[in-house]
Amino acid sequence: MQTVTSPAAPVRIGIAGLGRLGRRHAENLARRVPGAVLAAACSPVAEERAWARETLKVPRVHADFAALAADPELDALWLVTPSALHAEQIVAALRAGKHVFCEKPLSLDLAECERVIAEAGARPHLQATIGFMRRFDPSYRDAFERVAAGTIGRPFLVRSQTADRNDPDGFFVRFAPGSGGIFLDCSVHDIDVARWLLGRPRATRVFAAGTVALHEGLRACGDVDNGVAICEFEGGALAMFYASRTMAHGNDSHSEVIGTAGALTIGRNPRANRVEIHDATGIRNTCTPTFFERFEEAFLIEAQAFVAAVRDGADSGGATLADAREATRIGHAMREALATGRAVEL
Amino acid sequence: MQTVTSPAAPVRIGIAGLGRLGRRHAENLARRVPGAVLAAACSPVAEERAWARETLKVPRVHADFAALAADPELDALWLVTPSALHAEQIVAALRAGKHVFCEKPLSLDLAECERVIAEAGARPHLQATIGFMRRFDPSYRDAFERVAAGTIGRPFLVRSQTADRNDPDGFFVRFAPGSGGIFLDCSVHDIDVARWLLGRPRATRVFAAGTVALHEGLRACGDVDNGVAICEFEGGALAMFYASRTMAHGNDSHSEVIGTAGALTIGRNPRANRVEIHDATGIRNTCTPTFFERFEEAFLIEAQAFVAAVRDGADSGGATLADAREATRIGHAMREALATGRAVEL
Amino acid sequence: MQTVTSPAAPVRIGIAGLGRLGRRHAENLARRVPGAVLAAACSPVAEERAWARETLKVPRVHADFAALAADPELDALWLVTPSALHAEQIVAALRAGKHVFCEKPLSLDLAECERVIAEAGARPHLQATIGFMRRFDPSYRDAFERVAAGTIGRPFLVRSQTADRNDPDGFFVRFAPGSGGIFLDCSVHDIDVARWLLGRPRATRVFAAGTVALHEGLRACGDVDNGVAICEFEGGALAMFYASRTMAHGNDSHSEVIGTAGALTIGRNPRANRVEIHDATGIRNTCTPTFFERFEEAFLIEAQAFVAAVRDGADSGGATLADAREATRIGHAMREALATGRAVEL
Amino acid sequence: MQTVTSPAAPVRIGIAGLGRLGRRHAENLARRVPGAVLAAACSPVAEERAWARETLKVPRVHADFAALAADPELDALWLVTPSALHAEQIVAALRAGKHVFCEKPLSLDLAECERVIAEAGARPHLQATIGFMRRFDPSYRDAFERVAAGTIGRPFLVRSQTADRNDPDGFFVRFAPGSGGIFLDCSVHDIDVARWLLGRPRATRVFAAGTVALHEGLRACGDVDNGVAICEFEGGALAMFYASRTMAHGNDSHSEVIGTAGALTIGRNPRANRVEIHDATGIRNTCTPTFFERFEEAFLIEAQAFVAAVRDGADSGGATLADAREATRIGHAMREALATGRAVEL
Repeated sequence: MQTVTSPAAPVRIGIAGLGRLGRRHAENLARRVPGAVLAAACSPVAEERAWARETLKVPRVHADFAALAADPELDALWLVTPSALHAEQIVAALRAGKHVFCEKPLSLDLAECERVIAEAGARPHLQATIGFMRRFDPSYRDAFERVAAGTIGRPFLVRSQTADRNDPDGFFVRFAPGSGGIFLDCSVHDIDVARWLLGRPRATRVFAAGTVALHEGLRACGDVDNGVAICEFEGGALAMFYASRTMAHGNDSHSEVIGTAGALTIGRNPRANRVEIHDATGIRNTCTPTFFERFEEAFLIEAQAFVAAVRDGADSGGATLADAREATRIGHAMREALATGRAVEL
Repeated sequence: MQTVTSPAAPVRIGIAGLGRLGRRHAENLARRVPGAVLAAACSPVAEERAWARETLKVPRVHADFAALAADPELDALWLVTPSALHAEQIVAALRAGKHVFCEKPLSLDLAECERVIAEAGARPHLQATIGFMRRFDPSYRDAFERVAAGTIGRPFLVRSQTADRNDPDGFFVRFAPGSGGIFLDCSVHDIDVARWLLGRPRATRVFAAGTVALHEGLRACGDVDNGVAICEFEGGALAMFYASRTMAHGNDSHSEVIGTAGALTIGRNPRANRVEIHDATGIRNTCTPTFFERFEEAFLIEAQAFVAAVRDGADSGGATLADAREATRIGHAMREALATGRAVEL
Repeated sequence: MQTVTSPAAPVRIGIAGLGRLGRRHAENLARRVPGAVLAAACSPVAEERAWARETLKVPRVHADFAALAADPELDALWLVTPSALHAEQIVAALRAGKHVFCEKPLSLDLAECERVIAEAGARPHLQATIGFMRRFDPSYRDAFERVAAGTIGRPFLVRSQTADRNDPDGFFVRFAPGSGGIFLDCSVHDIDVARWLLGRPRATRVFAAGTVALHEGLRACGDVDNGVAICEFEGGALAMFYASRTMAHGNDSHSEVIGTAGALTIGRNPRANRVEIHDATGIRNTCTPTFFERFEEAFLIEAQAFVAAVRDGADSGGATLADAREATRIGHAMREALATGRAVEL
Repeated sequence: MQTVTSPAAPVRIGIAGLGRLGRRHAENLARRVPGAVLAAACSPVAEERAWARETLKVPRVHADFAALAADPELDALWLVTPSALHAEQIVAALRAGKHVFCEKPLSLDLAECERVIAEAGARPHLQATIGFMRRFDPSYRDAFERVAAGTIGRPFLVRSQTADRNDPDGFFVRFAPGSGGIFLDCSVHDIDVARWLLGRPRATRVFAAGTVALHEGLRACGDVDNGVAICEFEGGALAMFYASRTMAHGNDSHSEVIGTAGALTIGRNPRANRVEIHDATGIRNTCTPTFFERFEEAFLIEAQAFVAAVRDGADSGGATLADAREATRIGHAMREALATGRAVEL
């Protein structure tokens, strides 16, 4: 039996998943989100549970998700678990009467996406959002608002990229088989950005290509470390995507939206900070090393927006389950295009 | 009788002054500084007290400073009061056995500076720091660390500016007579930056000049709305300063440090965010409108560092009272140079 | 009968075509290319002939191309004529024993391209180059040399765009039917840049999409005012292209080459000059209004390189006829992809 | 007896001085200045004369200046000789009835400046200009025109610097004793820029300071390798100058003009070209290595403007002798301030 939350009461959150990104979410929820209480945590890893207990002072720490989902003293679940678990855990959370935030992707399987959407549709009073955090980055948000204000006329083209600094150890290669491939793993962010900035149009056709620049191990699962794609939308809007695992200079995830009266770029130079270094090599800035430094603020604002939405019953501004399904649907088509060398109709 | 704080216990802070900047500090202390509790507040203004009570839920709210200083349940005082009160309030805090953070300047009066330094010297177990927040801005900090690491060789020249967006109403003109003039009010930040980046050398000579570009009302008190200065230090290092009240594009407070093997600029383009706008006027970025947007993060890190220092008994990295006295001493000499048209020896 | 040119003698050039771009070429050849003499010109337009005679003091001015090609006192022809005439005029020039420079494209027709290549192949002592001027832009050249020096490791992806400022009158719409469409008219530059930076690989597959953002008149001939494309090359290299007729901020033609150890961008912000304007809208630079301001220096260096090559019998570094045929071949495939919505194998 | 030049006839120029910069001027005059003929050259160095004769095909080459000045087939002299010779050579040129262009400075001696001005004043039909080439740099020119158009309101502050890349050999140290010191050698460019952008106001007071960062040999002649200065003008305008011989990243000579409604920077990042390099150190551009790469175009336009002015009898837009005298006068005061540590009234 779910306890009732008054508007003034803090939102009691239970987090599942305390890996690298999960810990960042947990720290935000525990310390930096007004109106939130990190009341419970769950991880199959003993060290992670100890960290939650000792460092964050989380009162209830579970080894399995079912216990977390059943916790009657929680208003919301926060899922930072492996992608393959997302759909069933979201459904479990919703059935337990809890609001749910889940890291992207919703699911790599479209039928699963639909099932989750149906479950959520039956519970419209519950927040259910997927963590496309760029929507909460202040610069992306500024661009979104300028587009909405008509600054660039009618937007018709988005170019967007997710580009990670090369990991010489190729750690990610081991996870590639379960990741869905570079487009479903990386480009979903760009797909969501494109749809968000273009007014959420429906995709009609995609094409994709890719290459293995450095990580030969990817060939075994048909994946690439650099991929490009084009997406056409109803009404004529277009998007171009680039995803890379092999950047030398850092995480360089940036976007551009072009309209009939102007254009906006967001983060085109991924400056680490405001310092410029003048030396014999020229004038340079350093770059954000990973997506986390680049989007640290976005992750925090995302959490604050979710909690505020739970308290107000309002729209958090985050990606809906339907948005996430579209990202998966388009990403799948891109994967198919890469595999077949053919344009794929949607 | 002061209660004892165990290392693990939160630092109980009482803030004095809830004007525009004071409220920002209060919000940080109340919500964003791990290990701190905003336990009391003090303002002569009823609305400000109500805000502290209702919005921040501060438990004890006083109308006069004496009551705050006497509060036995406080470990530290946080002063965001008018400059003329700083010295006596710091002394009162120290005498009450409390750590003290005080917004800049320490005092416009050198004898007062010395008196405060003497009082603090007698209580070395108490933290006493002046709020030169640029030291905590991540970009300034990065530059400081690069200098310390020898990246630019031996630093010998700092150029630094504090430049506010023009306020067409000239609101600040009313406060100019008590501000000490543009150098003591604005350039003290740049003086502190210069000394900090150059290894805290002693100034030996200054020259300054100024002009009234827009605000004729400043002439009555001998002040200017744009001022420039040169400062020479022992050992040959130099600094150039610029202070302005009349920028069109925003708050443009930036610095540069030049060494024998390279140079660093910090914040030379005061970008508001990562967006670039392409339209018929060209390609542009917007700028931070006020010092607060520019240094919001610095104010927060500054508070976190102070609280950590109180808990650890360590150095916060902030400006000492002696640093603040030097800024005042140099600022005074610049004011004299402006008034007389002569170089002033220190 | 062709007169013999000694290495020391100036190269006597006859230009055909004195439209907007033709006049720029003519001025360069007449005034700024050491070792060149603009000895003849040809235009069907009386005013243009008068301009050549009076302003440039060209000694022999013809109304028809045959007279120019037959002029025995010329060493080289310089063709800035309509695209549809290029192939036959190049052949005529070669048959008359003259070196030939021709503005891009070689031809929109692949069979014609092959015919010209065969004619040139029979006369290896004659220079024959197509004007892909970006190869001579100092910044593109610098990038090319850095790639050649291994600075970025193995290059595997080029992104390149040709983007014109919008002409509200849509003047170009009238010429669209004969232009071959946006890819053959604009993207050929980017195709050539991509092949040049990637080591001249053979294209294997392309996909393209496009939209009409502003100029509805283009629909009649199946053209678009904004187009995007992906090109795959043998060996795994990739290229992404963007062509636009509707930019608000100016001509924004820039490129990027990504390698296994770094990346280079060329002209990503199309700054008109070194001025930055600080005002209430932010900090901005103005942009090059048209391709001519952007590539003015490239056009000049291109002419100087051609003339030097004629004198030395060396390689000018410009695009060969085979390079130009590849650009046409790829551009055609992109047009087909746009028309059919299918990926096109080459 | 001077021959008469008709407006249509080319300007016959004799150059004196074929050192590094002299050769650049000679090449421009010989090859790139419409309406000019490099008809004679003069150098005491045999190799330089041979170069003029063989490479530039200069018809008359002299070993001594008197022969050049006496050449009746010259309309103008172009002086790129040692500074100490400028004044007497300008006078000789004027007395021989020739227009004269002279590299900066006019003279390090104020009385000499006055004498030259008097001689020129008696021959108002002759062009006499000093080579402050920044006035002809397209970006400086653009800034000047924006200021003139009122874009930034009333300009009241110029910041300008001349900063050379460090020469580890300290070659310039040998020439320092005759250079007049860093301010008369380097900052005269900035002084001229400041006066030009501010409407040619009269300086009233200066202060200067300096340091030896690297080149200890400068101490022997009282010079420094880094100097800073402030200049006050009638009417309240101000200027700040910085001169350096020790930059790590290249020649970084840039300026800024601040007005009541905005500000302009010119060349703040001394980009060598449009390439940006992304690698493990960040994102960087390379810098112009010396003043010549930075101002190559300015030197050419300067020559073209002078020749056009000679042909038209119009104003070239270059610095007048009076402008050059002001630069010397202010530079002298800065040197005195550096030597004495006192502000100097003018």
